Amino acid sequence: MTVNLVATPADQLFAVPGVRWGITEAGVRKAARKDLAVMLLDEGSAVGAVFTQNRFCAAPVQICRQHLASGSAIRALLINTGNANAGTGQDGLARARACCQALAAQLDLAPEQVLPFSTGVIMETLPSERVIAGLPAAIAAAQAGQWAQAAQAIMTTDTVPKACSRRVQIDGRTVTITGISKGAGMIRPNMATMLGFMATDACIAPELMAGLAHELAEASFNRITVDGDTSTNDSFVVVATQKAGHEVVSSWQSPQAQALRAAMIEVARWLAQAIVRDGEGATKFITVRVEGGRDAEECRQVAYAIGHSPLVKTAFFASDPNLGRILAAVGYAGIADLDQRCIDLYLDDVQVASSGGRHPQYQEADGQRVMKQSEITVRVVLGRGTASDTVWTCDFSYDYVKINADYRS
Amino acid sequence: MTVNLVATPADQLFAVPGVRWGITEAGVRKAARKDLAVMLLDEGSAVGAVFTQNRFCAAPVQICRQHLASGSAIRALLINTGNANAGTGQDGLARARACCQALAAQLDLAPEQVLPFSTGVIMETLPSERVIAGLPAAIAAAQAGQWAQAAQAIMTTDTVPKACSRRVQIDGRTVTITGISKGAGMIRPNMATMLGFMATDACIAPELMAGLAHELAEASFNRITVDGDTSTNDSFVVVATQKAGHEVVSSWQSPQAQALRAAMIEVARWLAQAIVRDGEGATKFITVRVEGGRDAEECRQVAYAIGHSPLVKTAFFASDPNLGRILAAVGYAGIADLDQRCIDLYLDDVQVASSGGRHPQYQEADGQRVMKQSEITVRVVLGRGTASDTVWTCDFSYDYVKINADYRS
Repeated sequence: MTVNLVATPADQLFAVPGVRWGITEAGVRKAARKDLAVMLLDEGSAVGAVFTQNRFCAAPVQICRQHLASGSAIRALLINTGNANAGTGQDGLARARACCQALAAQLDLAPEQVLPFSTGVIMETLPSERVIAGLPAAIAAAQAGQWAQAAQAIMTTDTVPKACSRRVQIDGRTVTITGISKGAGMIRPNMATMLGFMATDACIAPELMAGLAHELAEASFNRITVDGDTSTNDSFVVVATQKAGHEVVSSWQSPQAQALRAAMIEVARWLAQAIVRDGEGATKFITVRVEGGRDAEECRQVAYAIGHSPLVKTAFFASDPNLGRILAAVGYAGIADLDQRCIDLYLDDVQVASSGGRHPQYQEADGQRVMKQSEITVRVVLGRGTASDTVWTCDFSYDYVKINADYRS
Repeated sequence: MTVNLVATPADQLFAVPGVRWGITEAGVRKAARKDLAVMLLDEGSAVGAVFTQNRFCAAPVQICRQHLASGSAIRALLINTGNANAGTGQDGLARARACCQALAAQLDLAPEQVLPFSTGVIMETLPSERVIAGLPAAIAAAQAGQWAQAAQAIMTTDTVPKACSRRVQIDGRTVTITGISKGAGMIRPNMATMLGFMATDACIAPELMAGLAHELAEASFNRITVDGDTSTNDSFVVVATQKAGHEVVSSWQSPQAQALRAAMIEVARWLAQAIVRDGEGATKFITVRVEGGRDAEECRQVAYAIGHSPLVKTAFFASDPNLGRILAAVGYAGIADLDQRCIDLYLDDVQVASSGGRHPQYQEADGQRVMKQSEITVRVVLGRGTASDTVWTCDFSYDYVKINADYRS
């Protein structure tokens, strides 16, 4: 079950000049499954990326960081599903490197110009020989467009392929932004990982790319939670192929640059929210907005405490306006000097609590009405300052337990 | 369903000289339910207590802190179920105070000599007039012993009353320790709260009591988690009635004092573990031991990351040795400089991972065998130092969702 999420029709996904996708069946874990994708970037492309903060990060994440740090011009991304190559020690690193070498050799590149990504079972040996054997077919299949197929290929237990395009005008030129993502929890049962890949043909100065990737992730993937479990493999990559022919964006000051960045944020946020809408067992999409904090960090901390609370999430599943649970989560979010007497709570437009207690006009029927919706905004006002932040999450249902308990059987 | 937990037979629960329990039906939320208890302490008793760290702490918790800080000799505890008096603002404080005043007046005490405790629905007005109306009957019923009845009276959605006694010898005198607890999650659905009350007739210097309460909680209630939700009302009180006739314990140096403290820790730990064994939907009791850390704090942090992970907990429910999830939780526990290459993982006596990867001799059948047990120890070795810590938790089942989603309906 998903919450108001349908696959974007292929004719609404625009090719990004300078990007080709090649997809094939490599039999990594199961036969007859498109489980290997290469994303080939034309010369001159600039790349930025962010990765999981999990200290148990997977081998491909470690290799990606090394290759990006080397300053090499990235020309190819190599993505397999079916195996995360995480918790695999030195052998896992060697296998990830071997895959990069094999792809680089066939494309006449250095291995450092390849970024590897894996998603799937943790703590199993990556069958790198099967990945390598699949590369010629993937390369042969490479062509422009293909984003819908790529979105399909990187799915593990996602129920809907996640892809989104936007177009903006810069200097009278049409610039395309297209992205895909996968994941249905911060970590999927065994088949772990959030992955996001986004490209634009916009001309963006290479030195802006790392910061841009960080900023896009902060506005999107770093604001979602399904179960609070951070994967070993989470990766988000943004590519600018520099093909669009407008003047190079070397800062985000100009209105046009701001419009470009806003469109990129919009795509990243769509892709991130799609992960929540396809969250394991999700029946509701919840926006948690916290206002009136001293800084955005403490607002986010409170929003995540609410978004992670199993009690809050099961109440949403049950459409039960059991809203004291939200106040309790605010209280344990870790703000040491929080004054409960300053706190207000709203469910959409219904004020539930004021000054830390039940709002005098609050009627349970009003709370009940909002709780029955499939999209709900929880708004907490801390009364400490002017900062705010927002996190997106889903509810917690029988199916979450079912999916996660039964997955491997 | 509970995990290896049966009610302690009444004849194994020993009265503590100097303590009387009185229990009655006050109709706080439902009729014909023993929902009001008074614990009356003889003059000279010394008291220590610890309370929730939740900043949204309930009115009775705030009053308890004030009364303890006033230095008054505590002579009575007043406990109601059916309503938590949390998220109730100034009115909630006034009602909690009114209850204390009423009990104090009938016992010829000052209100500051009474400690109030509430557990139940959050954000509903405490019907203090019903509590007050019930006090004469509770006082009239007060007598020595009655711990089994008290354990029953403080239950909300607990399925088994939780009580435990131990005896030790000091200076040839028999010293009794008896305690009760309630709670089946860090917070119960609506019917929130962990409560623990423990008394001994040992002679313990009053100035040791606050530290003792803290130490006992650290060794027990602060080492458990069901769902990671910290209640607004959590309270743990330890009483020493000074009746046993041995020399006053004024430090924990002597072997006898150490034996007393060890027995008190044993009772506190039994009561805390009983909460996990009666955890919402629990089918397994999990001990998470983390060793080889730089300090106990980081070990505990890792243990809690494992104990809170919905993915780890659903894997235990399914008896699925999907153990990469444990490594992932270790990785996101927040140790910034963790080196995954140093990490070993054991499931009881089975080594699952070594040096951050799958252990060469690990066979899934061995993991499977352990996962099927009702009591399992997860042991993580961080390879950073010599500190260790332990947390107790349970698995995460369909019934957790069912209990929390359906509770109020």
